[in-house]
Amino acid sequence: MKNRSLVSINDFSKEEILQIVDLAAKFEENPNQELLKNKVIATLFFEPSTRTRLSFDTAINRLGGRIIGFSDASSSSTTKGETLKDTIRMVSNYADLIVMRHPLEGSARYADEESRVPIINAGDGANQHPTQTLLDLYSIKKTQGTLENLNIFMVGDLKYGRTVHSLLQAMSHFNPVFNFISPDELRMPDEYKFWLDSKGITFYEHTEFTDILSRADILYMTRVQQERFADPLEYEKVKNIYILKNSMLKNTKDNLRILHPLPRVNEINTDVDANPKAYYFQQAENGVYARMAIIASILGLV
Amino acid sequence: MKNRSLVSINDFSKEEILQIVDLAAKFEENPNQELLKNKVIATLFFEPSTRTRLSFDTAINRLGGRIIGFSDASSSSTTKGETLKDTIRMVSNYADLIVMRHPLEGSARYADEESRVPIINAGDGANQHPTQTLLDLYSIKKTQGTLENLNIFMVGDLKYGRTVHSLLQAMSHFNPVFNFISPDELRMPDEYKFWLDSKGITFYEHTEFTDILSRADILYMTRVQQERFADPLEYEKVKNIYILKNSMLKNTKDNLRILHPLPRVNEINTDVDANPKAYYFQQAENGVYARMAIIASILGLV
Amino acid sequence: MKNRSLVSINDFSKEEILQIVDLAAKFEENPNQELLKNKVIATLFFEPSTRTRLSFDTAINRLGGRIIGFSDASSSSTTKGETLKDTIRMVSNYADLIVMRHPLEGSARYADEESRVPIINAGDGANQHPTQTLLDLYSIKKTQGTLENLNIFMVGDLKYGRTVHSLLQAMSHFNPVFNFISPDELRMPDEYKFWLDSKGITFYEHTEFTDILSRADILYMTRVQQERFADPLEYEKVKNIYILKNSMLKNTKDNLRILHPLPRVNEINTDVDANPKAYYFQQAENGVYARMAIIASILGLV
Repeated sequence: MKNRSLVSINDFSKEEILQIVDLAAKFEENPNQELLKNKVIATLFFEPSTRTRLSFDTAINRLGGRIIGFSDASSSSTTKGETLKDTIRMVSNYADLIVMRHPLEGSARYADEESRVPIINAGDGANQHPTQTLLDLYSIKKTQGTLENLNIFMVGDLKYGRTVHSLLQAMSHFNPVFNFISPDELRMPDEYKFWLDSKGITFYEHTEFTDILSRADILYMTRVQQERFADPLEYEKVKNIYILKNSMLKNTKDNLRILHPLPRVNEINTDVDANPKAYYFQQAENGVYARMAIIASILGLV
Repeated sequence: MKNRSLVSINDFSKEEILQIVDLAAKFEENPNQELLKNKVIATLFFEPSTRTRLSFDTAINRLGGRIIGFSDASSSSTTKGETLKDTIRMVSNYADLIVMRHPLEGSARYADEESRVPIINAGDGANQHPTQTLLDLYSIKKTQGTLENLNIFMVGDLKYGRTVHSLLQAMSHFNPVFNFISPDELRMPDEYKFWLDSKGITFYEHTEFTDILSRADILYMTRVQQERFADPLEYEKVKNIYILKNSMLKNTKDNLRILHPLPRVNEINTDVDANPKAYYFQQAENGVYARMAIIASILGLV
Repeated sequence: MKNRSLVSINDFSKEEILQIVDLAAKFEENPNQELLKNKVIATLFFEPSTRTRLSFDTAINRLGGRIIGFSDASSSSTTKGETLKDTIRMVSNYADLIVMRHPLEGSARYADEESRVPIINAGDGANQHPTQTLLDLYSIKKTQGTLENLNIFMVGDLKYGRTVHSLLQAMSHFNPVFNFISPDELRMPDEYKFWLDSKGITFYEHTEFTDILSRADILYMTRVQQERFADPLEYEKVKNIYILKNSMLKNTKDNLRILHPLPRVNEINTDVDANPKAYYFQQAENGVYARMAIIASILGLV
């Protein structure tokens, strides 16, 4: 992976994904490193994202690296009319690696073409967020002991949610069964379903939580946002259907773990938090180790 | 103090306060340390505060630690509807210690209940700002040679000023005499006066500067803000009464030192700045050493 | 230069300028240093400037130093009514060196009078931006092998552009010939032309690109901003005249290099970027080494 950018989860092969997951486990055991001594990493957030930015900043600091950057575009030269191309060229002359989040789909790929140093895509609009996928995979491996043959439930906005699309693609290496739970308006897009068909991967679609939840190994929750609905009445009809409550977890498997990319608003009731199957805060912590693994791999330091 | 949060100045005993003060002196002698090597400290400023943030950032850097965080809530996930509880849970999975400022009273105590790591309250609304109190105490000890038996004058907004309330409580360990100078609208609240009575501590109240200033060891100035007055005419009447001018310091004691939590607007005339009794900028510097002492103590590194 | 501030390029003699240029070359060869171990540098940006801030932050990090500061005034105490004087006094009690950008002309000189530590002016309004000048000089020396006897073309807004004024003054140590290309409204001010006359330095003025460009060693481009024109029609007349296109470089010298302080908007066509004579992105990189040299010199670490 040395000197390669990570723009899409599809940039990494199954073997490379497994390498990252294994390396993340090693960094979790020994999180304080000096591997990035004398390295400067730019974290360019053209749109704000506390969680992702703090997670990367923690990963870089735990690796002993130094950080330059900005946390929103208003403090970037963009406000002076500079193009993304020029900003990336400039910063790639300052830093050894660029982590970027940008609201436009495709911006990370475009940046990668202009940059002298590798780019890590920390989210480009509705498109990709591959480090989220890798931390999700690390969380799944850590809690299930394997990535193979799992029953993965995805709930909420499956139409626009980049995290579920990327996770679907990455998990497809590992012979999963998928269950999709979403309102009709926010169903998994056809392109992803065709793709699953072409790989011979089984999936089921539901419009609400059902007894079948008892089969789940992983329950991946996402938020149903009002602004996704053309008709506010449609939102009102469904808004309470996709809220996970602790009582709904009664007949679930012991190994079930609930994931969420965070931040959550109300789609997971707080009475779930104390349930040992709730795993979203540990998942966030895993993000630090996964990002340490990604950065160290791309910089060829491991 | 190891692994304990600092939410209120009352969380620390007299002995612990003295330990911090003594340790601050040691850090002032030798300010560059590596005690925080491999530690990541989060500084979460849900409302802006340059002075406090830069002071903490300096303290952490001088201790050799690493910093993650944000300088105002607009670049936090709060804007996406995340609760304080979730933000704190997440960040406490990233960092070894959280320093937080938040506009809501009680927010630091609440955060402490959710956090896996200690919390240092860097100001929660009108409630508490205990590290300010500890740097005030260090400044008093350093300039007076002792904290015992001092004549402390507090001037300005004694009703809403959290710094004077906390300092009053902390100094009560050391047998002070207090003189309060404020407009009627902004007098020291009864609850603090009852409390002083219960401890047998003498205090006097005045509505303007008087000759009695000649007895002061410490003159603690605060700002009288127009927005505290229901009637703007009342503010107009008093606004110039609580401005300290150099000429007013003629008959004061040699050991008198003037403190102010800063930023000041006009409540200390700039002609006071050159007076050797003006101590507010050194007081700000002392904040770095006091905060180094607090952080190192809480992390159990001394 | 030890312990001296850098407020104006005229603060440094010819010999000191050459020392900085030579030291920048050494840092470029060996960019990762520990010279600033245990030093805290404040970068105070009272107005945003990504490029300059990231360049300084990179320089400080590559030197092993620690950074405190803010990237725009809205997160500074200025919003609470604090004076620049008080902010500088405070920060100079925290940090070992202050880098500041401020929209007001003269603010850096004023800050220098109040500060206990050296000030580096990172731009004070239309006045000075001396570290830009030093990186420009380093770029010229590096590409031309010398600073002496060069033919320097300056294009665009020569009236308000602080970078061209400072570069003109600094280059005057080295027996240049200047060619100025600008609209009438934005000609080089008389004070600078009188000053060149007094030094016996030859200069020519043009209102558009001419064949004489074939003589240029350095072509220093700047932006012509619409807001500089009282009459929008005047701007419309000239706006396309000062745009450099690749075709215009056909008969230029092999050693010609095109500089630009960046960010550019459209004043250099992107078809120039691939021309080996385009040097503006490397120039930005040179800024890191020049700033490392300036900081290390002022702190007396070399």
